[in-house]
Formats: sequence, structure tokens, C-alpha cells
Amino acid sequence: MRRSQYFIPLLKENPSEAQVVSHQLCLRAGMIRQVAAGNYDWLPLGLKVLRKVEAVVREEMDRAGALEVLMPAVLPADLWKETGRYEKYGPELLRFKDRGDRECVLGPTHEEAVTQIFRDNVKSYRELPLNLYQMQWKFRDEMRPRFGLMRGREFLMKDAYSFDVDKEKSLEAYQRMYDAYCRVFDRIGLQWRAVVADTGAIGGNYSHEFQVLADTGEDVLLFDPDSDYAVNIEKYDEATAPRPRAELVEKKGIEVGHCFHLGDIYSKPMNANVMTVDNQNIPVVMGCYGIGVSRIVAAAIEQCHDEKGIVWPEPLAPFKVGVVNIRHSDAACAELATKVYLDLQAHGVETLYDDRDASAGQKFAEMDLIGLPWQAIVGPKNTAEGLVEWKNRKTGEVSLLGVGKLPF
Amino acid sequence: MRRSQYFIPLLKENPSEAQVVSHQLCLRAGMIRQVAAGNYDWLPLGLKVLRKVEAVVREEMDRAGALEVLMPAVLPADLWKETGRYEKYGPELLRFKDRGDRECVLGPTHEEAVTQIFRDNVKSYRELPLNLYQMQWKFRDEMRPRFGLMRGREFLMKDAYSFDVDKEKSLEAYQRMYDAYCRVFDRIGLQWRAVVADTGAIGGNYSHEFQVLADTGEDVLLFDPDSDYAVNIEKYDEATAPRPRAELVEKKGIEVGHCFHLGDIYSKPMNANVMTVDNQNIPVVMGCYGIGVSRIVAAAIEQCHDEKGIVWPEPLAPFKVGVVNIRHSDAACAELATKVYLDLQAHGVETLYDDRDASAGQKFAEMDLIGLPWQAIVGPKNTAEGLVEWKNRKTGEVSLLGVGKLPF
Repeated sequence: MRRSQYFIPLLKENPSEAQVVSHQLCLRAGMIRQVAAGNYDWLPLGLKVLRKVEAVVREEMDRAGALEVLMPAVLPADLWKETGRYEKYGPELLRFKDRGDRECVLGPTHEEAVTQIFRDNVKSYRELPLNLYQMQWKFRDEMRPRFGLMRGREFLMKDAYSFDVDKEKSLEAYQRMYDAYCRVFDRIGLQWRAVVADTGAIGGNYSHEFQVLADTGEDVLLFDPDSDYAVNIEKYDEATAPRPRAELVEKKGIEVGHCFHLGDIYSKPMNANVMTVDNQNIPVVMGCYGIGVSRIVAAAIEQCHDEKGIVWPEPLAPFKVGVVNIRHSDAACAELATKVYLDLQAHGVETLYDDRDASAGQKFAEMDLIGLPWQAIVGPKNTAEGLVEWKNRKTGEVSLLGVGKLPF
Repeated sequence: MRRSQYFIPLLKENPSEAQVVSHQLCLRAGMIRQVAAGNYDWLPLGLKVLRKVEAVVREEMDRAGALEVLMPAVLPADLWKETGRYEKYGPELLRFKDRGDRECVLGPTHEEAVTQIFRDNVKSYRELPLNLYQMQWKFRDEMRPRFGLMRGREFLMKDAYSFDVDKEKSLEAYQRMYDAYCRVFDRIGLQWRAVVADTGAIGGNYSHEFQVLADTGEDVLLFDPDSDYAVNIEKYDEATAPRPRAELVEKKGIEVGHCFHLGDIYSKPMNANVMTVDNQNIPVVMGCYGIGVSRIVAAAIEQCHDEKGIVWPEPLAPFKVGVVNIRHSDAACAELATKVYLDLQAHGVETLYDDRDASAGQKFAEMDLIGLPWQAIVGPKNTAEGLVEWKNRKTGEVSLLGVGKLPF
């Protein structure tokens, strides 16, 4: 992509409404713009990052045998009345009437909707296991939307729901999702922890939060350095979850995923039954599994930034390489920079080529701000020899490489 | 994908609420389920088709230089008041208040929102041309949602918006979108026409509808057989659009796309100005371009079906090939069918393998209903020789082929 044909509206100053670094940098780097409190436009650069997260999550859900569906954003209130949540859910549940005076909600989560699919279409244990997931924009009418993408009102969530004939099989499904979540968070290149979470009224040990580590996270974790085991200091209950053997207090997590064993708390009131091998008609056993896709974009920035801007981990970077021509008026430089760009593109490397008539300082500042992992810098000093400065955004290390020797 | 692990809940009878064939077949083939009037769950098979349409549209938008963004579904009423549409738009515009008593709408279209992006972030002709598009679920509160995906309340739309410094440049942008639309509709494999459309208060010749031809379409076209030129009998105005030279009445189109030259009707009231090369600050000149992504799924079925079910054109098929083992109990048949399935998968051919313990009749009926373009049929008669019946869903033609000779 040529920068002259792209749209990255930068901000020079930190906007006063942005209190956390991910919100500041998302706005400054032209990734998002606010439309109303907690509602954002995703501009091209931000949307590219979001799609990267989405693609990794989708691949791992498919690999784990979950099937993608898509449920409506607008749901009939009647469905929510079946489980009593229409009354119980706080004002975060946006309720309204349509033109036919029918009560509706804007779905913040889809347990009722997916249980309806199950109830109307599945009858026998022979059709199980079943795991349905969606990528859907959810709406939660927060009292005080804040921290940008971290706690907005509209947010993109992957929500999966498992259906099994008994608890044992359901816990196997839970484990498959847990493993898939570990792969997701490994693949997106962030430091993360799975944390035993509050199981509230459900009981048992079957709830895990997945947290991205960051200095600015909301939670403090107790972590066992000899194993994966960790708990959230504020939320865990020693009666149900053991204290980590060797304690190590970690910064703090940003919750980006949650696995939850539901049992029959939705299937029972909604009569979502299944016939067992013994001809018993019993409520299907469920689990639910969320990933905050849009929140991961913010969490990644909280973990990966420096004083100059964002430092994307490669799996989430909107482009892998930024090509910077620091002497726009020099024909040889322009020719070499264009060659580097076209070579990288031809090798399938996503590249942003800053081909504008702008100062080197402006181009460097922008490249550092938007945080592409690699910069290929073309200037008058090295162009005659066909050499390019190949710079790592994170470490700042620079190598001088021939055009044909770029490491892709 | 193995059928035993997939989720296609079929209906044996035509549901009474479904009046048009696409609605009937979408329900019967387990592609969608109704949640409320005009709101549907997309089940795995339907969603796969939707994603195929989406991918073609996205590729052609990107190729035409449009940049993908994503605007919120929930929009502040204030934005709609700037253009007067908050009051003017009928009850199809869903209006509600959030918990802070702020007036909101559920966006049926995004002219105001995109014009806000432009106004807040672009100042000079140097940053033009600009074309922003999104794939977004829209909501239109229809009085009588009907015909399934054809006129639902929630629908997936691609909407693009061009911004240019003057009318001449804007018409070039219009032409680029027109050409991109032609490529989209060619690529998805349907018969279609571009039709000069009503330009209403805008005037001029700069509105085209793109219609998929079908016996069940709502519109009748007057078509010039010597050229691409066609008009809609009911909607065109002879004062602004010439009558086709040689008339040929066509079946009736289903509108799936619309290009519209807007001029400054949004930019002027919203003060979306741009500085010209002569230092004039003038309203930016806009066009808007919609494609009904979810409606195309229905239109494709209206055009491509027979008495047995859907006949997908290859570019939209959820799977290219269905492998049918007609003798489940025969170990040699099962082995050969599995080999065919794995071979096709290994060649990157999307394949649905009906590996269930079910009758041949049931498997054939389902394959014909869901309409995959090719069926690879394995049975006891030919298995000893390693031969497979390779059947074309559309023509019914069958060839006997060796396993290694399947045409992929």
C-alpha cells in the first residue's frame, strides 16, 4: 500500500479524553475515531489489526471443531424472558421497542439465542458434541464507557457455546476450548496467563479468565512460577481454588477471554433437551467461551508500546514492513524505494510505502507511532550501492542490506 | 468437512411462512433460521455462502482503491439531525434512547457517519481522491419484513462512499465503482444487468441499479440487446434517461446493488469542506455505492434452483464437492470414499463428505437440496475398480472417473 493513497489521520497531541495509553495511541495513530461515548469508527489501520486478531481466533475455533454461525444483533425480549435475564440484567442491557411495539434487546451476549437454535434443531445425543460460535458486534450500555476500546459500548466478541449430553463430555469440550484459547494467545504474540476465575453461583473449578499482562491492567495475579497456574487476587475463592504454591505477584492482567462451564442453567429453563442413549430426555449440558476480539487490540498496545508509539507483535501488525524514502526529491532514492516496495509486495509481505513528499523526520515519527515491526529506510548515503537500512522497531537495531537480501 | 461433524438441520416440508423459493430453500437447506420477524440466525452452511459473496465484494473494492473501515451500528441522533434525516426518515429508522437518555438510531445507512469522518480528518484536495467502504449489518425496521433474506430487517450491506474535489473527478470515481460492480457480479457467477435508475431529486444520469435476473424478481426491465443498456420500466424517467433503442422485456430484476452520485447533498449541510488548488474551501463532492451482500444469497437461489433444491454457481457454493458413500456398511466403499475426500481436501477443494450411516436416498436428496456443484458418488458397483461417479448437480451429467482423475 502506498501511503499517498492510504488514510491514516494522525493526531499530534494526546487527546484529553484518553486516559490510558492504548486509547491515546489508537487515536493518535489514526486507528479509530469516537462517534459517541463508547462507539468508535474503525479506520483502515485499526481495522486491519482487528481482522488479524479475528483471523487467528477463527482458525483456532475451526481447528477445535467449533462451527461458525451468526446470530442477530437485535433479539426479541421474549427469548430473554424465558431465562429471567430480561428482568435481572442491569441497564447495560439496551431495551427498546420496534415499530410494531414489540420489546427487543440489543444483544450483549447470546446464550438465549444459541440455546434456541439448539432447542429447535437438535434432538438426540447422536448429533452431539456440538459447538457453535460467532464473531459478533455486541452492545453493552455502559454507564461510563471509558478507556477507548478497553471498555466501549460496541465491541467485537467471539462467543462459542458447547452442547454435550453429560458433564463428563461437557468438560472434555471445555478442555478443547481451553487448549484452543492457549493456542490463540500464543499465536497473537502477547504475554498472557490463564487464571482460575470466580465461578459464582455455578460452583466448581470450571471457569478460567485469559489475561494479557500489562502494567496498566486492572487485575493483580498470584502466579505459580513452576507451572501455568495463576489466580486473580481479588476474585478467587480459596474454598474452591487452591492458592498457588509459590507466590509471585504479577502486574496485573487485562481480561481478554473467559471460559465458563454453564451446566444446565440455560438449557433447563428453555427446555433445550436431548435424548440420551438410554432414552432419557434431559437438559443439554452447556459451556460458553468468549474472546474480546476488539479488546485484544487495546490490550496488545498496553503491553507493546514505548515512548515513540506502538510496537506491534508481528502477528497483529497491520503491515509487516514500512518503506521510508527519506529523500523524496532524489530520483535514485525514489527508484530504489519503489523497487524495495514492489519486491516485498511480490513476496507477499504486507508493506506500507511512504512515498509522500514529506520530511524524513515526519516519516520516521509516523512509522514509529504506527509501530510496524520493520522499517526499510532508503536514503542518499546508501542508494548508490543499492543498500537499505533494515531497522527493527522494537530493538532499534539496524542492518545494512542489499535489496535482494531483505530477510523475507 | 465430515457431515457427521457438521450442522445442517434440514426441513422436509416447505415452511408455511415462506412464500418465495429462496426463503423456502434457505430454511429447508438449514442455511438460516428465523429469530424474530425479519431477523435470522445464519447457520454454518448459509454463513459460508455469505462469506463467499463478502470476499468477492471486498477483493473488488480493494482492487478499485477503496479503503475498508467500520462504522458503529448504533449512531447518535445528533448526526442525523444535521442533515434533517432524523425527522424525514420514516419509521424504518429505528430510534431509541440509551441509558443516559441520549437519542440514538440503529443505522440503516451511513452517509452522515462517513461524512463526519471526512469532515473531522480531511482538509485538502491533496488528500483526495478518497473512497471509504464498510461491510456492516444494517437495520431497517420494515413494517412487514418478508421474503426471508430478500427483505429482512437485519441485512449485511457493503456501502462505499467516494470523496472528490469536483464533479469531474467524482464522476471518475463513480465510473471506477461502476466497473468494480460489473466485476463483482461477473465473478459471483449470476446473470445480471446494470439498469439506469431513478435519480430523484439529484438529477442527471448518475444512478444505476444492479439487478440479478430471476423469474421471481420484483422489477421488469427494458433492455437493449445490442448493448449493456437497460432501464427499469417502473422507475425510469424518459426526461433524464433515453429509452433503450431496441426493446426487449426481461424478467424482472432483483436489486442487489446501487450506485448513486450524491454531489454535495450531505457535505453541504454537514460542512464537510475541502480546500481546492485555488484555495477555495468548498463542499466535497460525494457518491455512494451499496451492495446487498445478504440479499445476493437469496437472489442467487431465486436464479439458480430446480425442483430438487438449490444449484449453486461455483463461486458461491459453500462446498465445491459433496462426497456420497451410498453403502455405509461396506468397508471397501468407506475406504474409497474417505480416500476421495482426503484427496480433494489435500488439493484445497472444499468438500463435504457424507460419512453418516444413512440411506443412499436420504444422502442424494440432501445433496441435491443443498446444491453443491459436484457430487462424487462411491458405491459397491464401481469401488473394486477404484472408480467414482462424478456428477454435475446442474446438468445431471455423470462420468465414471478413477480416483486420481477427478478434475481438480
